[in-house]
Amino acid sequence: MSESKIPYKIYLSEDEVPKAWYNLRADMKNKPAPLLNPGTLRPMTAEELAPVFCEELVKQELDDTTQYIDIPQEIRDFYRMFRPSPLVRAYCLEEKLKTPAKIYYKFEGNNTSGSHKLNSAIAQAYYAKKQGLKGVTTETGAGQWGTALSMACSYFGLDCKVFMVKVSYEQKPFRREVMRTYGASVVPSPSETTNVGRKILAEFPGTTGSLGCAISEAVEVATSSEGYRYVLGSVLNQVLLHQSVIGLEAKAAMEKYNVKPDIIIGCAGGGSNLGGLIGPFMGEKLRGEADYRIIAVEPASCPSFTRGTYAYDFCDTGMICPLAKMYTLGSSFIPSANHAGGLRFHGMSSTLSQLYHDGYMEATSVEQISVFEAAEQFARVEGILPAPESSHAIRVAIDEALKCRETGEEKTILFGLTGTGYFDLVAYEKFHNGEMSDYIPTDEEIAASIARLPKVE
Amino acid sequence: MSESKIPYKIYLSEDEVPKAWYNLRADMKNKPAPLLNPGTLRPMTAEELAPVFCEELVKQELDDTTQYIDIPQEIRDFYRMFRPSPLVRAYCLEEKLKTPAKIYYKFEGNNTSGSHKLNSAIAQAYYAKKQGLKGVTTETGAGQWGTALSMACSYFGLDCKVFMVKVSYEQKPFRREVMRTYGASVVPSPSETTNVGRKILAEFPGTTGSLGCAISEAVEVATSSEGYRYVLGSVLNQVLLHQSVIGLEAKAAMEKYNVKPDIIIGCAGGGSNLGGLIGPFMGEKLRGEADYRIIAVEPASCPSFTRGTYAYDFCDTGMICPLAKMYTLGSSFIPSANHAGGLRFHGMSSTLSQLYHDGYMEATSVEQISVFEAAEQFARVEGILPAPESSHAIRVAIDEALKCRETGEEKTILFGLTGTGYFDLVAYEKFHNGEMSDYIPTDEEIAASIARLPKVE
Repeated sequence: MSESKIPYKIYLSEDEVPKAWYNLRADMKNKPAPLLNPGTLRPMTAEELAPVFCEELVKQELDDTTQYIDIPQEIRDFYRMFRPSPLVRAYCLEEKLKTPAKIYYKFEGNNTSGSHKLNSAIAQAYYAKKQGLKGVTTETGAGQWGTALSMACSYFGLDCKVFMVKVSYEQKPFRREVMRTYGASVVPSPSETTNVGRKILAEFPGTTGSLGCAISEAVEVATSSEGYRYVLGSVLNQVLLHQSVIGLEAKAAMEKYNVKPDIIIGCAGGGSNLGGLIGPFMGEKLRGEADYRIIAVEPASCPSFTRGTYAYDFCDTGMICPLAKMYTLGSSFIPSANHAGGLRFHGMSSTLSQLYHDGYMEATSVEQISVFEAAEQFARVEGILPAPESSHAIRVAIDEALKCRETGEEKTILFGLTGTGYFDLVAYEKFHNGEMSDYIPTDEEIAASIARLPKVE
Repeated sequence: MSESKIPYKIYLSEDEVPKAWYNLRADMKNKPAPLLNPGTLRPMTAEELAPVFCEELVKQELDDTTQYIDIPQEIRDFYRMFRPSPLVRAYCLEEKLKTPAKIYYKFEGNNTSGSHKLNSAIAQAYYAKKQGLKGVTTETGAGQWGTALSMACSYFGLDCKVFMVKVSYEQKPFRREVMRTYGASVVPSPSETTNVGRKILAEFPGTTGSLGCAISEAVEVATSSEGYRYVLGSVLNQVLLHQSVIGLEAKAAMEKYNVKPDIIIGCAGGGSNLGGLIGPFMGEKLRGEADYRIIAVEPASCPSFTRGTYAYDFCDTGMICPLAKMYTLGSSFIPSANHAGGLRFHGMSSTLSQLYHDGYMEATSVEQISVFEAAEQFARVEGILPAPESSHAIRVAIDEALKCRETGEEKTILFGLTGTGYFDLVAYEKFHNGEMSDYIPTDEEIAASIARLPKVE
């Protein structure tokens, strides 16, 4: 590796933390379809959303015309703790792959939540505080979002109640302890503390919980407690808005060195990091100012873009939340328990779904073992232990770089490295021991859950 | 928190990664006492050290006159992946403590080894590679050093054999899996792969291992295998030399903003991070160019500076390594198993011991529960989950800042934040559950192990 004009890590200064979020929807001709009230099947109004979400966040959720929304100074102050995040030129990986491609990654893992989730958690906590609320509730699976939210609430002195899927609460105690360090109360779900929890426990006494059930409990507590609201870490428009700092910084850092990506790659679960990373680039593409290949990478075990259908569906398995139009496998689809990473959500952000539907981006799916092979290859030369989720993007970035080796093209590749894998070592252990397997759902399985989609005229 | 001239994080540019290590011993009038051959009780010669350590490292170990030693370009290239590390102004902590003190910390945890250990691991791996060796061996307890070394060996394509204390291998599988991700072979110690391991297993079939035993196995394999040497992550002069990058960067970053610390604080186990952080500052003090209060913080459960004696002792509990003159509790001293952090070494680096003996630095000891209280307080406002080891320094930094609140003095405090606590969540859990206790050895216990020190005239 030789010294080069472009440093290994490009750090913007703290003054260059974005001053406004970029609202991708403002540049879309075909706006993402609105959330529907599951009872009336009419678009959800601000009034209907207000008992669940904070006022300012409802506004952001429904605003599809304002291009830039100012980031309050208090949030920018917090961002300064871990932003701007580095844009890294992967010199060592390029050398290892013997590729003429130039590979960059935006690394969002250098904060204690270990992921990009903190970008939206701090914004949501701020607006809750500003509204004079006492606290917020949320659900968490493995705990990435819950960790980020507990850090954000601790900073603003808000109470934070996290319903954690019981099986994760018991088997993955470490993120739980990080949340407790930040003062959050973490309740295994289903719990005896809510009506819905008691009902589920009475019906299924041995249940180890599900994300759908945890959502139901969190929403119940938020809507029935004075001074509480519910917050969510992905899928929603507001979350993509907050995550736009990833793309804004990446673009600014590249422009400093006159670099333009040819290909932009991100892993896709609910779509929050992908939407954030590609946002400002996609904006240019929508406005006809530039062209980029944009690739969403999803796990072959949960392939909503590549094998799902574009339709209205519930966001939660409990079917209590509004309906969203999205690429979905059906809210009753259950990804293989063997799948180690996140990215297990059955649907995809409405915004990204619309863009994919309109042909502005590609999607591909990758299998688990090849994802861990990419993760290990990356870790060994770049020195970062990547999260399994992020490693889906690494897999495709490596594949594209290898294609360049074949063709001799010097393409510039940018991908999102959303987080670290410190809490995923049980999965790495399985991989090392040859105990990991790939699971790809059959056409029949997917058809069966899609057949159960709600009927929306 | 208001915008200030001094940013939250001070990043030097990659060109400012130090070009030479600073060798503190060159500025010491009273040089640290030499290692002694345990057989002859004469100073170890380069020839005697060569079968165990790499040639270039033996030179560095014995060199107490060269003030600066060039850092080879290959090591600087690797340093660029995670260095310069940020110097952080702890604005949020200051505000929380309502102190007029200005608090800075040098954060060494933003790399996958999670600690400062990588600074020396990459240097030691480089010299092994340069000497044409096939690989290196080492021991590791909880796995921090082993992780750093496996990353370094992976980068240079060296084989890496880590003997991991059996109880940690079984109970703390996560760092083991990080090491395996980097291609290291990790062997639970004692093992059937060495003479000393087999002997110990025959004698104590149920043993869960010890660091001393793991050292013995690693040294045996290094000295009996063609093309292998043994490497060590703390205590040695060469390690303090490599770690001087911490202090050099901290000093350069502070000088950019015309800041001079009044108090410099570091946690102290074997002394590697403390020696690195204080190195260049201590140099100025030794040369009479500046004055600083320098405080070593050790756990009350393993208080080698504050309650040990200054004498020749074995570095390992197996008593096979050379004798070092140091503040020691005796190599037979066993710290309480309850103590969660590292810093469990019975002795202290010879260099630091001499400086402490000559009155150039202070030492203090702190109890475990108060350390975790400081860790939690720090995490909640500064957003970093600190390692228990690092939190010893945080405890004293907070205490000094609170004294400033009493007196109104605007002192500038610098401390070393050596690593993250992602792999220490079992200890955090104990703390949250009120199951943590403090253990302070009795005078009788310490006297008993000191009575067993080797007799050196």
